[in-house]
Amino acid sequence: MSAPPTPYLRVDVARLAANIEKAAAIGVALRPHVKTHKCVEIARMQVAAGAQGITVATIGEAEAFVDAGFDDVFIAYPLWVDARAAERLRALADRARVTIGVDSVAGAANAGRLLGDRVSALVEVDSGHHRSGGPPQRAAEVAQAGVEVRGVFTFPGHSYAPDGRAAAAQDEARALAVAAGALRAAGIEPEVVSGGSTPSLADSDTGVLTELRPGVYVFNDAQQWELGTVGSDRIALTCRATVVSHAGGRLVLDSGSKLLGADRAAYATGFGRLLQHPDARVVQLSEHHAVVDLGGAPLPPLGSQVDVIPNHVCNAVNLVDELWADTGDDLLRWPVAGRGRNS
Amino acid sequence: MSAPPTPYLRVDVARLAANIEKAAAIGVALRPHVKTHKCVEIARMQVAAGAQGITVATIGEAEAFVDAGFDDVFIAYPLWVDARAAERLRALADRARVTIGVDSVAGAANAGRLLGDRVSALVEVDSGHHRSGGPPQRAAEVAQAGVEVRGVFTFPGHSYAPDGRAAAAQDEARALAVAAGALRAAGIEPEVVSGGSTPSLADSDTGVLTELRPGVYVFNDAQQWELGTVGSDRIALTCRATVVSHAGGRLVLDSGSKLLGADRAAYATGFGRLLQHPDARVVQLSEHHAVVDLGGAPLPPLGSQVDVIPNHVCNAVNLVDELWADTGDDLLRWPVAGRGRNS
Repeated sequence: MSAPPTPYLRVDVARLAANIEKAAAIGVALRPHVKTHKCVEIARMQVAAGAQGITVATIGEAEAFVDAGFDDVFIAYPLWVDARAAERLRALADRARVTIGVDSVAGAANAGRLLGDRVSALVEVDSGHHRSGGPPQRAAEVAQAGVEVRGVFTFPGHSYAPDGRAAAAQDEARALAVAAGALRAAGIEPEVVSGGSTPSLADSDTGVLTELRPGVYVFNDAQQWELGTVGSDRIALTCRATVVSHAGGRLVLDSGSKLLGADRAAYATGFGRLLQHPDARVVQLSEHHAVVDLGGAPLPPLGSQVDVIPNHVCNAVNLVDELWADTGDDLLRWPVAGRGRNS
Repeated sequence: MSAPPTPYLRVDVARLAANIEKAAAIGVALRPHVKTHKCVEIARMQVAAGAQGITVATIGEAEAFVDAGFDDVFIAYPLWVDARAAERLRALADRARVTIGVDSVAGAANAGRLLGDRVSALVEVDSGHHRSGGPPQRAAEVAQAGVEVRGVFTFPGHSYAPDGRAAAAQDEARALAVAAGALRAAGIEPEVVSGGSTPSLADSDTGVLTELRPGVYVFNDAQQWELGTVGSDRIALTCRATVVSHAGGRLVLDSGSKLLGADRAAYATGFGRLLQHPDARVVQLSEHHAVVDLGGAPLPPLGSQVDVIPNHVCNAVNLVDELWADTGDDLLRWPVAGRGRNS
């Protein structure tokens, strides 16, 4: 296919394949989080490389991937199940093994009451990110509240900090070991001990964890580059953008926050990076403008194209209906099957 | 219709109508920017209240609204026109009056070469926001470069600063007066002198400007509330969210950045506000979690619903396929017709 008008998201398929292969060599089962790409073609590559099932964030994402033939899905989220959600989960369970997250006694009791034994759960514990997840030492109380529990999980999201990767992986292993021990003490053998994040992936404790759920690693992004998780040579997704203005002697691109997302972590040096200009920073971002400081380098001409690396690739992908996959020989249109499936 | 599962975006139609009516009373022609809502139903309300045409950001948005019957569209963006864009613009010009933005001699010459007299332009000038737009005093050079020019425009985006509204409106009037004067001196009578932003709307100089292009005013958002543009009683769009966790003694909602957007301006007090809890702040935001500090107030129960106000409503709307319009009597599904039309 010929390239679409800019701005569009372009995947470097060779880099994507190398990222998938590298993660598959870690030695713990992978259950990749497909919220990053929401794309059936990429999930199939992950399964072909050995992934044992997939992770999603919502029932809607689970439906999109079960519809495409995936048969083992973990919804890594402390769902509050109501009657409608229960109906959708039961329908999914007719076609796939479905596991949900629970992080409270009330949530687990509620899920058990509405789901019976059709859907099992993992207990979410907080390993230091302080988002959802209960205290690890109280995992057994949740596990005994009503829903069938097969294990424990955490997201060590505090790995998203400069020099935070190794410490977060240690926290993850410690919290999961405590939670798994609490389940065993209550007579529940944890079949699954699940963690993982892209920054902490290489530091994961494969003695404690039975599976890892990274998402971003397939593409990487400016955050991973700036955290030091990868070099720019492992970034597999960029936004192809056109130079529309040289106003004020700066570079203005058509890749705004409606393509890149507006994410800017505290440690980020800007709103995105440029693949071909490592010293450049996106210093100002609005919906359809990215203003770039090139650090004194000559401005690429009006009408020329450059590749912008989003800060947070998951939110960038969720803004578009398709990815454009560059195989070297061809440009393929890959639908973002799970886009916007937020509930 | 019955309410969809959370999280979803809900419009308070009575507040929406009041916001539209209030802006229509300003006394200068409105050409509202529909990138905020991307919704045909709302644009029709704006035109019914007196708007003279609409503003969009991209050719794709223009196509969505011309398809729906709108016949006077300004693409307020310094487009770099290539052969494909020219073809699309000419096709639009068969069905509507189409005006584009230009901000450089090269861009205007290029547009003139590819478009002839089928599409006219306004010259964009920088009034202090320092994004796109050239120096006001050089507007005539751009206007004489090739494309047919009908006037000048600016976006006083530096109005998005605490106490910045009145000064930005003054800058806007000054820059537009200089640019219009430069055109007159070159023998081009500026038919359109266009500005406007939601924060500066009430301060606009109606002696200089012939039209205003605000967008956010239809809904308002946490940014407008925190800037002091409006009180919370004029916020017409919220994200209905479910309480999924009380982890760590805090409120965790299912309205993450994939619904709210990740925007956080320097002046913002968090990642969003709660309509029913003015002291609450969204202190941590990830894709499907909003962690809320309620300032010591009792936590709403698990499974209950609350209304979250996005920081920047334009990016929130662009994440969903539909808005749920609450008329008081009914809940209507309004498609976001222009969602994701980024090029």
